[in-house]
Amino acid sequence: MAGPGVSAADRVLEARIGAVDVRVVIGRGGVARVGALWAPEAGGAAALLIHDANVAPLAGGVARSLKDAGLRVVSASVPPGEPSKCFAELERLTRLAAREGIRRTDTVVAVGGGVVGDLAGFVAASYQRGVRLVQVPTTLLAMVDSAIGGKTAIDLPEGKNYVGAVWQPRLVVEDLDALATLPARELACGFAEVVKYGLLEGGGLWDRVEEWPALPGDPGALAELVADCAAHKLRVVTQDEHEGGLRASLNLGHTVGHGIEAAGGYRHHTHGEAISLGMLAALRLSETGRGLDPEWRERTRAVLERHGLPTRLDAAIATDDVLAAMGRDKKADAAALNMVLLDAPGAVALRQNPPHAAVVDAIEELRA
Amino acid sequence: MAGPGVSAADRVLEARIGAVDVRVVIGRGGVARVGALWAPEAGGAAALLIHDANVAPLAGGVARSLKDAGLRVVSASVPPGEPSKCFAELERLTRLAAREGIRRTDTVVAVGGGVVGDLAGFVAASYQRGVRLVQVPTTLLAMVDSAIGGKTAIDLPEGKNYVGAVWQPRLVVEDLDALATLPARELACGFAEVVKYGLLEGGGLWDRVEEWPALPGDPGALAELVADCAAHKLRVVTQDEHEGGLRASLNLGHTVGHGIEAAGGYRHHTHGEAISLGMLAALRLSETGRGLDPEWRERTRAVLERHGLPTRLDAAIATDDVLAAMGRDKKADAAALNMVLLDAPGAVALRQNPPHAAVVDAIEELRA
Repeated sequence: MAGPGVSAADRVLEARIGAVDVRVVIGRGGVARVGALWAPEAGGAAALLIHDANVAPLAGGVARSLKDAGLRVVSASVPPGEPSKCFAELERLTRLAAREGIRRTDTVVAVGGGVVGDLAGFVAASYQRGVRLVQVPTTLLAMVDSAIGGKTAIDLPEGKNYVGAVWQPRLVVEDLDALATLPARELACGFAEVVKYGLLEGGGLWDRVEEWPALPGDPGALAELVADCAAHKLRVVTQDEHEGGLRASLNLGHTVGHGIEAAGGYRHHTHGEAISLGMLAALRLSETGRGLDPEWRERTRAVLERHGLPTRLDAAIATDDVLAAMGRDKKADAAALNMVLLDAPGAVALRQNPPHAAVVDAIEELRA
Repeated sequence: MAGPGVSAADRVLEARIGAVDVRVVIGRGGVARVGALWAPEAGGAAALLIHDANVAPLAGGVARSLKDAGLRVVSASVPPGEPSKCFAELERLTRLAAREGIRRTDTVVAVGGGVVGDLAGFVAASYQRGVRLVQVPTTLLAMVDSAIGGKTAIDLPEGKNYVGAVWQPRLVVEDLDALATLPARELACGFAEVVKYGLLEGGGLWDRVEEWPALPGDPGALAELVADCAAHKLRVVTQDEHEGGLRASLNLGHTVGHGIEAAGGYRHHTHGEAISLGMLAALRLSETGRGLDPEWRERTRAVLERHGLPTRLDAAIATDDVLAAMGRDKKADAAALNMVLLDAPGAVALRQNPPHAAVVDAIEELRA
């Protein structure tokens, strides 16, 4: 697919989500092409570039490419880590935008991982009741998952992602070269979501996930893998933007996973690590509730272990704390605990309120 | 139009805006019927009731009716006045919602004027990425204008309504009896927006506006007048939710009006008073730019004066300050100052960048 800034080796995904045309460009060297890719839509307007302080060099590259394309750029650095997803940062960034004269016709550009994507995305959704958003994810997790689909949010002390919006990016530029400097633990965390897509889609995607060598692997093959995961998510979100049904399938491993993450005070495990454990619990529940062949849990465990992801729940995290945190999980409806189960890889079953004993068993099984 | 909670004397307006079905019920005694009107859609969920501290008795009536309909009600009072449209209140209310276990399937109910409607509306738009919203406007201005159309926001020190969302209410209950305790100055401010609808629609609506006796007037006739203004706005917003074109017509009088409001530090004139002056300036510009018969400005001035609205700009407000504030008005595009002009009542013309000298003349003319 051609167009300004697109290279022949890129994978380009396009979707119309709600009333918004979303374009995802996946390949190498994209950071230097953000300006060329966005300029035709930007129409010479300004950009508020919000980036993780850890990726300042990448953000500098994005800023240069936007300036070369004729845009005025206002840059803002955000401290790394989840605590930046807060009201104080949202207020600081929107006030900066106002003081710098950022207008309704301008663009917010997010450069970083899930934290910056969520925060900058909500700035874009709410500043002057919404300006256009470009996502430039720099972590594997953001590339395959959080930069796609439009979920944006900040946290409250009472719960993660409790204040936000669904606001689709117009353009997502995924530069695989950005992963070269990503710490191994963060690469592995992103791979946990890749394993999720392998289980959700099954078939050839699962095969490639299962056979994946040490991370990151061949750049061209990784670009294809990332593109196929992103394409899966884009298809699902196009059909169900506001999680009325199908989109909930993307929460495979997230119900128990969030419980483990919260029970550990968000310090014990990263999101990807908690999701690894959550997926194994969901597969165990799928065995008892849907007759899933236990072989899949063993094969999934082997993949996770090979990439350094946890497959055993630490004794320091009590089952009761996990259950309590699940009860407070905002993904649980007033009356229902929603779980994503599998009949087989590629065959998803949404299940409300699995038996309490089965949930306890699935968590306890993580200690075996 | 029948249905639970609807009285035979009510006017019921219905529209589909974006993907949301919006229902507006206008009549007397609506406060006591909010629960009956909303219960069929609420499905027994909880309600976070956010109200202006000045209308505690009305809010109590709404709370009782919701409880009688089987809903759990969490009430929160907000200090009266524009300063409540701030990040601190947004944070306080969303944290309260989280602590009280308000869920994605629950409802935010706003009881008050424009301030509470804007603030509670943004709580609804952003809490857990969006919950359903019911508006119960208690001022004339909110009934004819701000409670309809889905614009929600808080202010920044740098500008009014700089952070917010477009989030449609599912139900708007307009109880004319609520106006009985409204101060005369606030009633007049709401009437300024009524005059705006008279000019935008012309014909019979203008005739009724021009002939309106002392406010509030006959309750039945006032309900009809309010309903016709709300219906006008609902029609416009249905065609153009995100102000790509037609919705901008609702800003008649608001470009210069906002400039006057800001130049006076938001203390000199209320919104409605500033809009009165802004409409006269827009009509003057319509004479020079569109050949509008000067008779309409004289007739509009007479209506405004009769209801105690200002028609002369105070010497304390400098023309340069008004112009400067207009330049910073977020409704002005990067390159363009957008003005709403009239060829005649009912015939709207959007005009970009009217000549600077004509704008200065229109402001100076307010001192004549």
